[in-house]
Amino acid sequence: MDKTAAVVVIGDEILSGRTEDRNSAFLSRELRGLGVRLRHIAVIPDDIDEIASTLKQLSDKYDYVFTSGGIGPTHDDVTMAGVAKGFGVEVMKDPDMERIIREKFETSSTEAALKMAEIPEGAELIEVSELRLPLIVFRNIFILPGIPEYLKIKFEAIKERFRESPFHVRTLHISEMESNIAHILQEAERVFQDVKIGSYPKIGKDAARVKVTMESKEKEQADKTLEYIKRRLDPSVIIGVE
Amino acid sequence: MDKTAAVVVIGDEILSGRTEDRNSAFLSRELRGLGVRLRHIAVIPDDIDEIASTLKQLSDKYDYVFTSGGIGPTHDDVTMAGVAKGFGVEVMKDPDMERIIREKFETSSTEAALKMAEIPEGAELIEVSELRLPLIVFRNIFILPGIPEYLKIKFEAIKERFRESPFHVRTLHISEMESNIAHILQEAERVFQDVKIGSYPKIGKDAARVKVTMESKEKEQADKTLEYIKRRLDPSVIIGVE
Repeated sequence: MDKTAAVVVIGDEILSGRTEDRNSAFLSRELRGLGVRLRHIAVIPDDIDEIASTLKQLSDKYDYVFTSGGIGPTHDDVTMAGVAKGFGVEVMKDPDMERIIREKFETSSTEAALKMAEIPEGAELIEVSELRLPLIVFRNIFILPGIPEYLKIKFEAIKERFRESPFHVRTLHISEMESNIAHILQEAERVFQDVKIGSYPKIGKDAARVKVTMESKEKEQADKTLEYIKRRLDPSVIIGVE
Repeated sequence: MDKTAAVVVIGDEILSGRTEDRNSAFLSRELRGLGVRLRHIAVIPDDIDEIASTLKQLSDKYDYVFTSGGIGPTHDDVTMAGVAKGFGVEVMKDPDMERIIREKFETSSTEAALKMAEIPEGAELIEVSELRLPLIVFRNIFILPGIPEYLKIKFEAIKERFRESPFHVRTLHISEMESNIAHILQEAERVFQDVKIGSYPKIGKDAARVKVTMESKEKEQADKTLEYIKRRLDPSVIIGVE
């Protein structure tokens, strides 16, 4: 079975529309490149109970969960408390985190920064050489920062451990109305059950009115599906093949 | 109590990173402008069971749910089936939808397009003059299309029914490290319990190292919180106030 993943973006600023979420799009592209099937993205508030219930549910259901945000030193950073609550463990001051913070932060900010040493019991630390603070992992939950530049660095430090066999995607651009090709796609879906067939209508001046994608972990299956659909279309409506 | 909302984006193409989700950011900004508190965004696959369970859960928990995607004529458009399953009703061919489709679609595509007449029992239709197809509403779930241009038109046709008293936000840009002001924000949070205080560190060359936001439905409370925090900061670290 393919490995599956969920992404949980934690932050009132995203829900209120004040800040744009760039992290879930980044992680979706990365996971795809790694051959991991992302099955759920949730954006939730800085709220301990919401974090606890969302993470428990997704951690049980999928192989990996990646969180973004809520791990700084201020009162609205409650991701660690949420993780702990979701799994019925305590938040504890971790001696390794404490040592790292005392070493790497200016004396003036050590006290507040020490809040970041408080992590769920049983969490592991993974050192990331480019950053002051390590990546924290609790069970199958990888706790990433909200700042996109830092999230990227931390994710890249661990991404190879998630690599699976790649997805193969074929794409057809068609100048027909979606409803006129629906029956062909439905047949193809029945014949090639391991291939995900997607149909995406386009509007505007583009000659292609619909994009059809065929995705599989089996390259041959993706290719066969493409041939099957192409053969059933009037060649004049095929604008492009990728 | 403030009205609350959830947004559910339905589509494999978003989860796979092939297509960027613009709809949830649009809806988050719109809901904010309307004074509605968006509490959850979920992005889920074109999968009847996932749609059913996610929508049931969010519809019970929040005042409004807005979905995007999965309502076209092809095999991967399963939002209506998901809504119906979530609430234990049947998908039925709606006579009004059937009439509209027969009137407005080319004869060649009518048969496939008629799949779009199949909607959950008990759903209502709201005509949207700019578009061929009406907006479909099931209980508190507003079923919007995935194509951003159409979603926008349908949402704008109904948005005024959601309008509440507005949010008031004050923003401070500060040249201090987040950990050095954490204690001030924590005090302010205790004093002004109806005000949501957010703290967002910035990286890069900007002189402001943290942005602090104060949000409330009570204008006076937002202003008082701003004054409270300003008074406790060294004036030289305040780079900007909005």
